[in-house]
Amino acid sequence: MVEGSRSDNGSLARTTDGERSQQRPCTPPELAVAPDAVINLELGDPTMYEAFWKEAGERTAVVIPGWRGMSYFSDAGGLCWFLEPEFEREVRRLHRLVGNAAVDGYHLVVGTGATQLSQAAIYALSPADANHPIGVVSPAPYYSAYAPQTDLLLSGFYRWAGDANAMGGDSHIELVCSPNNPDGAIREAVLSSKPGKAIHDLVYYWPQYTPITGTAAHDIMLFTMSKITGHAGTRLGWALVKDLEVAKKMTYFVDRSTIGVSRDSQLRAAKILTLVSDAYDDDKDTRRLFDFAQRCMADRWQALRATVASTGMFSLPEETSGYCTFTKQIVPAYPAFAWLRCEKESVENCRELLRGHGVLAQGGELFGGDARCVRVNMLERDGVFDVLIQRLSSIE
Amino acid sequence: MVEGSRSDNGSLARTTDGERSQQRPCTPPELAVAPDAVINLELGDPTMYEAFWKEAGERTAVVIPGWRGMSYFSDAGGLCWFLEPEFEREVRRLHRLVGNAAVDGYHLVVGTGATQLSQAAIYALSPADANHPIGVVSPAPYYSAYAPQTDLLLSGFYRWAGDANAMGGDSHIELVCSPNNPDGAIREAVLSSKPGKAIHDLVYYWPQYTPITGTAAHDIMLFTMSKITGHAGTRLGWALVKDLEVAKKMTYFVDRSTIGVSRDSQLRAAKILTLVSDAYDDDKDTRRLFDFAQRCMADRWQALRATVASTGMFSLPEETSGYCTFTKQIVPAYPAFAWLRCEKESVENCRELLRGHGVLAQGGELFGGDARCVRVNMLERDGVFDVLIQRLSSIE
Repeated sequence: MVEGSRSDNGSLARTTDGERSQQRPCTPPELAVAPDAVINLELGDPTMYEAFWKEAGERTAVVIPGWRGMSYFSDAGGLCWFLEPEFEREVRRLHRLVGNAAVDGYHLVVGTGATQLSQAAIYALSPADANHPIGVVSPAPYYSAYAPQTDLLLSGFYRWAGDANAMGGDSHIELVCSPNNPDGAIREAVLSSKPGKAIHDLVYYWPQYTPITGTAAHDIMLFTMSKITGHAGTRLGWALVKDLEVAKKMTYFVDRSTIGVSRDSQLRAAKILTLVSDAYDDDKDTRRLFDFAQRCMADRWQALRATVASTGMFSLPEETSGYCTFTKQIVPAYPAFAWLRCEKESVENCRELLRGHGVLAQGGELFGGDARCVRVNMLERDGVFDVLIQRLSSIE
Repeated sequence: MVEGSRSDNGSLARTTDGERSQQRPCTPPELAVAPDAVINLELGDPTMYEAFWKEAGERTAVVIPGWRGMSYFSDAGGLCWFLEPEFEREVRRLHRLVGNAAVDGYHLVVGTGATQLSQAAIYALSPADANHPIGVVSPAPYYSAYAPQTDLLLSGFYRWAGDANAMGGDSHIELVCSPNNPDGAIREAVLSSKPGKAIHDLVYYWPQYTPITGTAAHDIMLFTMSKITGHAGTRLGWALVKDLEVAKKMTYFVDRSTIGVSRDSQLRAAKILTLVSDAYDDDKDTRRLFDFAQRCMADRWQALRATVASTGMFSLPEETSGYCTFTKQIVPAYPAFAWLRCEKESVENCRELLRGHGVLAQGGELFGGDARCVRVNMLERDGVFDVLIQRLSSIE
């Protein structure tokens, strides 16, 4: 995102670099960044995906008549009574297509993004009768929003307790993010947790970011539209939940917090996911989302690694690869964030260094990590990513 | 809603009572209720409005292309950065049209329903450095969800403290619901609150429910699509907030809870509100939402009061009326809920009595009130309302 600009109204300067945009078509060519603009890569805004949906054209539009979806209830008899049946059907279909998570025997709970569902899951796993709040942990570096989200209301049921590696035993709730935000690492729970005390945040476990190496089948698994199709503004996530009582408690949390989840978002997401899966069911269809996104990510990571290698100023986590059961080939991981470490002796705060060059990123200390690291969004529009590469190249 | 049925798929039995449906066109004639079905009037599901939007036809449809609204950001430079500018514009336009609330000088914060915003407002008004949680109160009978929503996480910042009439002083946050849920009463704050410690829940302050007697200009005023146009499934509310810092804290709460609000819902609501206001700008347009809804409510309240008078089993709050600056006539109040009191000596629990006759409603004790009272939703589809009247008539 470009600071001070509105992100969705085409008010950005037009580029004259049509040739380059043809080579790397992740973003429409009309969107580019003014030379002196500050670029904001703090959030994981997935605007890279706009190009795919623009290319796909009118058939991607959802049409919602004025009278549709007016009731609070999507499925009055269902466990999660605010879950649209057609959205649920397409979510299960997509997981079966990709093979990244088990759906049979799982309850599906919909939420206003994975953000609401991670809180719902923590709530559901917290003992209702404890004398003091249960600790919530994740191994550092961990997603920077876990701590402030968990402690937003200073709940009497749970409290953020920090780095899981500094803990022992089984008396905590562990957030397991894999591939990990911010560093892309593949993770398993580090605590010898009692059954049912881990929450698997798998929002990046999709083929464009990492080889799909198996069908995950954890107790609670979180996903979100934002990181699959790029529809962050839709604010729609889901949880696959093994235990009925946990699913009921999560549903209760979403009910009390927001009386359910936008049905408009669910209707739109159902349409979007239908198009994604249909393209893989039809051998002749070349408009395939995961193929597009993986090409973009490969291109960007190649450019970033080349820049990092040429300047010698920074380092990145080593590239990993594996056999992907979805693409049926060995592919590298292309994380949604770059966990960039400044290697220059004199620099102790990488965030400040980048800010001085017009690049905003979250500093490593927010992730329980090192201030010599920053987390950089890899999913922005091409024009913004190009500026990132230019500016990193110029740092000495 | 009919128990065990899905509310939106037309699976209900078809009526043969076409004539009656023509007389009272609040619901499409094809939706009716089986004679032995349990009707659920516990929630305020506003499905009465479906008839209006079906009648309005295709022009009410919103079309959202696949590439639209993908970013987290609706208005990156704005205070409430997840607020769609066209939605904000139509909200302000509607308040100016109706004259029910001041908008000039107010900040607008959007939320996932008024539910999320009441929590955001409580959060924003709670002292960050208090030794113990601040009490949250409302005069009984109060909206039954206030208590469980407030205490969902047992926050260290605030805690539900019950009936405002049992309190004194100025050390509480007061929720002022007017017209009041459940009894339709017009209310002002009862505590001698310090400035900025009252939250005005004005979700029913619209011409179909009560005469608009003045332009409300409180510090925090909450509204929701559900109770204006009937779009409950859209999960969209807004707060008009006088103080900049309070608006910022509320925005922070929504950010941390759900990273903003569905842009799809906002785009759809902008379209819906545009149609509502346009109809009043055009002298020839007869498809006017508030006129439709007021006719439905007048019809229903007349039927309900006649039934209550004829059986002698129940009583209702007295009808009030006033000069409405919007309709420019003296009109009665037609509350969205009936606060029905059982007058039969032998009955101590009105909820149980109604349940025995296939009518589910919330018992008065949930509202801090009397178990001889129940709250009955007045906004259901015609078929359901007709069954309510039939069943009330049959109780002896």
